[in-house]
Amino acid sequence: MKLKVKILKFLAGRPVCMIHEKTAQEMSLHIDNRISVKKANKRIISIVNTISNIIKPKEIAVSNMVIHHLKLKKGDVVEVEITERPKSIDLIKKKLKGEELNKKEISEIVNDIAHNALREAEIAFFIAALNSKGMSLNETKNLIQAMVKSGKQLKLRGKVVDKHCIGGIAGNRTTPIIVSICAAAGLIMPKTSSRAITSAAGTADVIETIAKVNFSIKEIKKIIQKTNACFVWGGALGLAPVDDKIIKVERIVKIDSTAQLLASILSKKISVDSNYVLIDIPYGKSAKVNKKQAEKLKIKFLSLGKKFSLKLEVVLTDGREPIGNAIGPFLEINDIIKILKNESDAPEDLKEKSIMLAGKLLEMAGKAKKSKGEILAKQILDSGKAFKKFEQIIKAQKGKIRKFKPGKYTHTIYAKSNKKITSYDNKLINELAKFAGCPQDKASGIYLHKKANQKIKKADKIMTIYATSKEKLEHAVKFYNRNKKHMVEYA
Amino acid sequence: MKLKVKILKFLAGRPVCMIHEKTAQEMSLHIDNRISVKKANKRIISIVNTISNIIKPKEIAVSNMVIHHLKLKKGDVVEVEITERPKSIDLIKKKLKGEELNKKEISEIVNDIAHNALREAEIAFFIAALNSKGMSLNETKNLIQAMVKSGKQLKLRGKVVDKHCIGGIAGNRTTPIIVSICAAAGLIMPKTSSRAITSAAGTADVIETIAKVNFSIKEIKKIIQKTNACFVWGGALGLAPVDDKIIKVERIVKIDSTAQLLASILSKKISVDSNYVLIDIPYGKSAKVNKKQAEKLKIKFLSLGKKFSLKLEVVLTDGREPIGNAIGPFLEINDIIKILKNESDAPEDLKEKSIMLAGKLLEMAGKAKKSKGEILAKQILDSGKAFKKFEQIIKAQKGKIRKFKPGKYTHTIYAKSNKKITSYDNKLINELAKFAGCPQDKASGIYLHKKANQKIKKADKIMTIYATSKEKLEHAVKFYNRNKKHMVEYA
Repeated sequence: MKLKVKILKFLAGRPVCMIHEKTAQEMSLHIDNRISVKKANKRIISIVNTISNIIKPKEIAVSNMVIHHLKLKKGDVVEVEITERPKSIDLIKKKLKGEELNKKEISEIVNDIAHNALREAEIAFFIAALNSKGMSLNETKNLIQAMVKSGKQLKLRGKVVDKHCIGGIAGNRTTPIIVSICAAAGLIMPKTSSRAITSAAGTADVIETIAKVNFSIKEIKKIIQKTNACFVWGGALGLAPVDDKIIKVERIVKIDSTAQLLASILSKKISVDSNYVLIDIPYGKSAKVNKKQAEKLKIKFLSLGKKFSLKLEVVLTDGREPIGNAIGPFLEINDIIKILKNESDAPEDLKEKSIMLAGKLLEMAGKAKKSKGEILAKQILDSGKAFKKFEQIIKAQKGKIRKFKPGKYTHTIYAKSNKKITSYDNKLINELAKFAGCPQDKASGIYLHKKANQKIKKADKIMTIYATSKEKLEHAVKFYNRNKKHMVEYA
Repeated sequence: MKLKVKILKFLAGRPVCMIHEKTAQEMSLHIDNRISVKKANKRIISIVNTISNIIKPKEIAVSNMVIHHLKLKKGDVVEVEITERPKSIDLIKKKLKGEELNKKEISEIVNDIAHNALREAEIAFFIAALNSKGMSLNETKNLIQAMVKSGKQLKLRGKVVDKHCIGGIAGNRTTPIIVSICAAAGLIMPKTSSRAITSAAGTADVIETIAKVNFSIKEIKKIIQKTNACFVWGGALGLAPVDDKIIKVERIVKIDSTAQLLASILSKKISVDSNYVLIDIPYGKSAKVNKKQAEKLKIKFLSLGKKFSLKLEVVLTDGREPIGNAIGPFLEINDIIKILKNESDAPEDLKEKSIMLAGKLLEMAGKAKKSKGEILAKQILDSGKAFKKFEQIIKAQKGKIRKFKPGKYTHTIYAKSNKKITSYDNKLINELAKFAGCPQDKASGIYLHKKANQKIKKADKIMTIYATSKEKLEHAVKFYNRNKKHMVEYA
């Protein structure tokens, strides 16, 4: 049926159409049915609501997402049809029963997610199926391929390298340092990062303190042409967008599955055309995985790397505590600049880990001989070339290097006796930083004055909490006091 | 924040509120956040959308469900607050990991579903968790209790009996016959039934051909006072409404779990105050369960019956083919009347099964001695007392006994040789009836002229398909031809 567009400017977070009750009856449509809305050769699937006093029969009001996708304006006429129940729902049911899906079936599910043919609840069932029944390596491969196909791709020339950490460790902001070193060595590194959602800060949040991170694919290509690299926010680029839709639903319950984790990471890497990929899997009591799980995951990454003809390596790293001293956007960018500028009070562990990972990438891409990568990485860092490259990229991203004062409301925890820290709990430290205001308040966060295995004397500073308001600081201190026993473990 | 209600008359299938973009910013609300909307002492949780050209700042437009729940009218002022992420989401995650939930945790999830604090995707994760991890008997008991508490309850005097079939068998319309017999014997039988959603017809659809089925709890009590029984639609009564909300999401993928099946059935029975409950579990190749599964389910029903001090019995019945000859509202009501009127061409198997089940209930409630129930049930039926009772109930439900002509577009399938049917596939017969127009077209359906083990001669009628339009008949015939091999099995 042809319906006339009425612009109501409404945002629903998903494609929603409002039609008059009579039109719904005429089309045998019920609330919550799926319809396809077409204009010229563009089509979007949407949910139906009815509204009867501001919309006339034969009119349709659509949410922003539909307007945007179909480029609609007032008075446009769209073709509306009821859509059949997507076949992919039965395929999700098949997976819920534990059966294996073939390539065509997986691509059908991914396509339906891409075209909004599946609703959140249906995607939830898919995630739950992956979580409880898992996926074979072949299924995972097909999932990755379908995800890559569903989105845009970056085509780049040269040796394109990338690194990815599976996450879960507070601080651990190695990316800006590794990218600066590798790009200075002549490698291409199109780094896309996420913003914090469940953590205290994402790389995009940290870089955003000194530069823009939101660019189009065309703009990113220009930045890379100029500087070999970029640090941008990956969220709005349209690279493997199905992955973003799945993650959105997954975040509701914060569960993930190995298959989805693998697919999420590798689909993004393949979408940005990487040939050399280094995966960092931190393991430990408060990390995402323990050592055994890390080893299993490594094998899966390596097998998938082969299937996609990627030169892929995996390093298992120590995840028993945060990496670096700083947690929170301002505090972290300050420490990154310290490392790149070779300042004496730069956090040693973050520096070492960054050099180690950059060294691996230099070896993988043939810039250094085997076991000589770290030496080269250290040279590039020590010589100031990495800092120069960092400055150049930040400038290309319309930014400027600067350090920041953290929040003025502070609370410092002191040692009550001589002792030694054995570990910090990553999850609790993360939560503490969030209570202090992370990631919204860029000036909030935590500074760890002491790390594991350092000697501590009575009255030494252990950590400082920074906040931008008295209330938030009080909230954070209360959280610390409730959880301190598990947050910091002493020998 | 206090907002003024603007009435937009919109139906969204769930509680949705529209507020102006500026108001959303002021409240730090994002699209899809949950808010609590309060008026006087009533509260409902709703999802936020923004709309900017027909709603002013400080105004709110709400979907019908919110208007209804809070009894809102134009210009009313409501108190709107952002709600925290429900704690029950973490409990659902716990269940997804396979952990056992305690009474308080289960009741928290059920309460949040009852108050719309959980969205469809979150309920989907809960269903998937029950499906993949199961529930212990204790958890199931707690689930049932929480579901009963979440809704209204019917309080009745006397010996209240009920029966329930787990479903999956085409035809099988024993309810109207059993209720008429038991009520004629003096038992109280407040039968609530469902409408067809995935099947060809539900008991409510069949009774609706000759009487009203949609009543309030108060009206139902009056009908029962007058006649001892009722056949009503259970969907809008508010008995264990959480069950309905779970089923709505469950239907998306058509999966269920044993725990949820048990909870769904028993929460309804307890809500209508039944003391004597008979459960019918048909088993067979195309039934919901096979014999082994049926036996397991029986044990669970019996254990839960004890936990709730119900006199509960379970019968396993033959589910290898449809029960009765008719599938479809008009065809089924005609056959029910034939049985109640003792007409000679009434379907023997449906009659026998109804007598057997009614007999069990008469024994359970002490109206007949052990093994004498069937004799009494048959007497009541043969004497015409059951028919009289049926007439009385139908009259109390504002209806009148009558038979119907089925759809005028027909297609009959004839035997091509002398043979014997061994079984019909329930699922395919159901699908065939739906292709013919069930349950919307009350006159559509299937009539099985021959059942399993009857001798068939060449050119005998096997089945007739009835439809109300040529197109639907053609659709159904095509479906039959594609599936006939599996739909009817011959010896």
